[in-house]
Amino acid sequence: MPSPEFFQVLPVSDALTLLDSHWQPQPGSETIATADALGRVLAADVHSPEQAPAFRKSAVDGYALRAADTYGASQSLPAFLSLRGELKMGEAPKDDIDAGEALLIHTGGMLPASADAVVMLEYTQSIHEAEIEVLRAAAPGENVIQAGEDVAEGALVLPRLHQLRPQDIGGLLAVGITEVKALSPPRVGILSCGDELAPPEADITPGMVRDINAYILSALAEKLGALPLRFGIASDRLDEYRQRAEAGFAACDILLLSAGSSVSARDYTRDVINGLGEPGVLQHGLATKPGKPTIIALCQGKPVIGLPGNPVSALLVAWQTLPHLIARYLGRKPQAPDTVRARLSQRVASVTGREDWVAVNLSQSEDGMTAAEPIFGKSNLIFTLVDADGLLRLPLNTGGYQAGSMVDVAMF
Amino acid sequence: MPSPEFFQVLPVSDALTLLDSHWQPQPGSETIATADALGRVLAADVHSPEQAPAFRKSAVDGYALRAADTYGASQSLPAFLSLRGELKMGEAPKDDIDAGEALLIHTGGMLPASADAVVMLEYTQSIHEAEIEVLRAAAPGENVIQAGEDVAEGALVLPRLHQLRPQDIGGLLAVGITEVKALSPPRVGILSCGDELAPPEADITPGMVRDINAYILSALAEKLGALPLRFGIASDRLDEYRQRAEAGFAACDILLLSAGSSVSARDYTRDVINGLGEPGVLQHGLATKPGKPTIIALCQGKPVIGLPGNPVSALLVAWQTLPHLIARYLGRKPQAPDTVRARLSQRVASVTGREDWVAVNLSQSEDGMTAAEPIFGKSNLIFTLVDADGLLRLPLNTGGYQAGSMVDVAMF
Repeated sequence: MPSPEFFQVLPVSDALTLLDSHWQPQPGSETIATADALGRVLAADVHSPEQAPAFRKSAVDGYALRAADTYGASQSLPAFLSLRGELKMGEAPKDDIDAGEALLIHTGGMLPASADAVVMLEYTQSIHEAEIEVLRAAAPGENVIQAGEDVAEGALVLPRLHQLRPQDIGGLLAVGITEVKALSPPRVGILSCGDELAPPEADITPGMVRDINAYILSALAEKLGALPLRFGIASDRLDEYRQRAEAGFAACDILLLSAGSSVSARDYTRDVINGLGEPGVLQHGLATKPGKPTIIALCQGKPVIGLPGNPVSALLVAWQTLPHLIARYLGRKPQAPDTVRARLSQRVASVTGREDWVAVNLSQSEDGMTAAEPIFGKSNLIFTLVDADGLLRLPLNTGGYQAGSMVDVAMF
Repeated sequence: MPSPEFFQVLPVSDALTLLDSHWQPQPGSETIATADALGRVLAADVHSPEQAPAFRKSAVDGYALRAADTYGASQSLPAFLSLRGELKMGEAPKDDIDAGEALLIHTGGMLPASADAVVMLEYTQSIHEAEIEVLRAAAPGENVIQAGEDVAEGALVLPRLHQLRPQDIGGLLAVGITEVKALSPPRVGILSCGDELAPPEADITPGMVRDINAYILSALAEKLGALPLRFGIASDRLDEYRQRAEAGFAACDILLLSAGSSVSARDYTRDVINGLGEPGVLQHGLATKPGKPTIIALCQGKPVIGLPGNPVSALLVAWQTLPHLIARYLGRKPQAPDTVRARLSQRVASVTGREDWVAVNLSQSEDGMTAAEPIFGKSNLIFTLVDADGLLRLPLNTGGYQAGSMVDVAMF
């Protein structure tokens, strides 16, 4: 039995690059209502079926008129125009205007064909019901939004792989696109393995623990916009573990196995993964702490991650890998975690040859700076992460940070 | 009819402070499954009903033993111990160990009562089935996780108003808390008003436009963790507008009215809001562009925002106010938008007395810096925002920014 020391570890980013070199994601797509598509990723370029605005409209409350009729007009020498009535919102002008005429129009109102400008109310005076004074000249096009000025018919509205924001939903609906073809979010399957595990709602007998990894990992997948699928708990029996892994694997796009994946007699994860298909295990062992005994694999075109059974290790490895996998599945770049610049309150040491992640609390110092206080303790206690505000990365091959160092803390 | 110039405008932050001084949110709460509670805000402190771990367990694969039996042991002078068998995962030890005995145990296994340390496999050798050599002394407590070391029975697990992250869900489930009392997210009601508006799926006749504000605003509310409720479109008839506003107001916690709220003849929004209850309109006019004619109100303890009908103005005002309203409703601080530091490619000017928001595109410059390119054009075209990567704020009473300035662009 090889000792864990024999792992040829790789930095997390190198292991993901290795996976990417083998992985060509083939996401599915589905047609959904635009109104329900917030955060979804477009499966195809979207072109506008019509122009917007659909007609020339006024940008202000005022009078639609022919600009030429106002040339030379001023406060002292106004232009007099006949009032052709008022255009109600939502209606097309019943008649065109003639030379010397004006139509009262509201913001967004449709211009009559011969009007080429709108003069704001502020620059006019009403003489009587049928006549107005215009106190300043209007240029052609003034206060007019041209048809198609927002978007032209046939124009590319949004490109393939764009992730929809509130304004994008507005833009699509503005040109009548009420459905879009979106990539299906990846189904992230999660299978826990271990004779000691029981569901959280079960009565626990001595020696048993609640399987929290399935819920931590599904919450993380949900947060990242994926569709988590919990496949329950397999026993430590190889045949059962293999059977449940195969069934889950068939039903998901990315499989997370949460089991003892350290090299030990009771550990079948490596064999189970290799049984799921070619090329199988690509890397066993990451240069990160916690999380060293992780397995990175690709089976029949689907990533499979063998996570340590320890919840802290499992979460920190998933937090470093799952954003990349989900983003790459959808053809996007992973979002970097929010970071906060803070002053480290105590020295933290690290070991050469690996990245260390240290949980920290943030607080305000008396001098107004943000202070980062490392939370020391056994690394496999979940409340270390519950109590933490963020994580501090100690990069590869550094000795750590001195007290007082300015560091970037990743919020998580 | 007063001209819009007569508004006594307030900066957005001052208007929100004014609202806060009148507003005491009274959020409801509901009991939900912990597994489904990602992102939800706790309605009460949560204490642990039990300790975790529930029993003393091993942190490694190795032999549970009495530390005293190993004192003085070394590579050259090992301690010999009788093997008491192997503890299977998930089971409690059947018997205790006696002096001079060891029990093979796995990571997470429950220690027998008399064992006080675990020696890792690497520091042992198997002599035969019934005896092992221990090659180094163990200290009491070595490789042992004490009962209650992660969390004590009765300890505060998470405080009221904490927003649940994946690790929090894990911590709660670890101690058997399968349900939590969470604040109900605010119901953000949205009513559009205007004779020219039609639902996005309708056939549009000349003079009509699709009501996209309802969808932009509901997507924003959804993104912020609220529960959006779209109340449809009211006509410009005062009685209908008033009736639909009252019905919607009764069914939500925060009401957004998207209608022409500029001061004009057809504008009833101010009266409609004042009809919803005391104190009514607190502020009409914000020192922001776009978005000046906004109304900020509180009626019967619920915020009501009268947004400009123009989609760009409506979104930018909601983007500046809704995060504050939703966070305050839930007793939390609003999250600041992500920002990107960038070099401005062109001069942008602003007017004294207001904040200006300018849509920008971001790109990589040849020298590796991020460049921010302002998108000029009419401010009421929604595709200006669809095409934008972010927003640049020109603060109050500055002249804008020169080309080449380093600026913070808010991603949105």
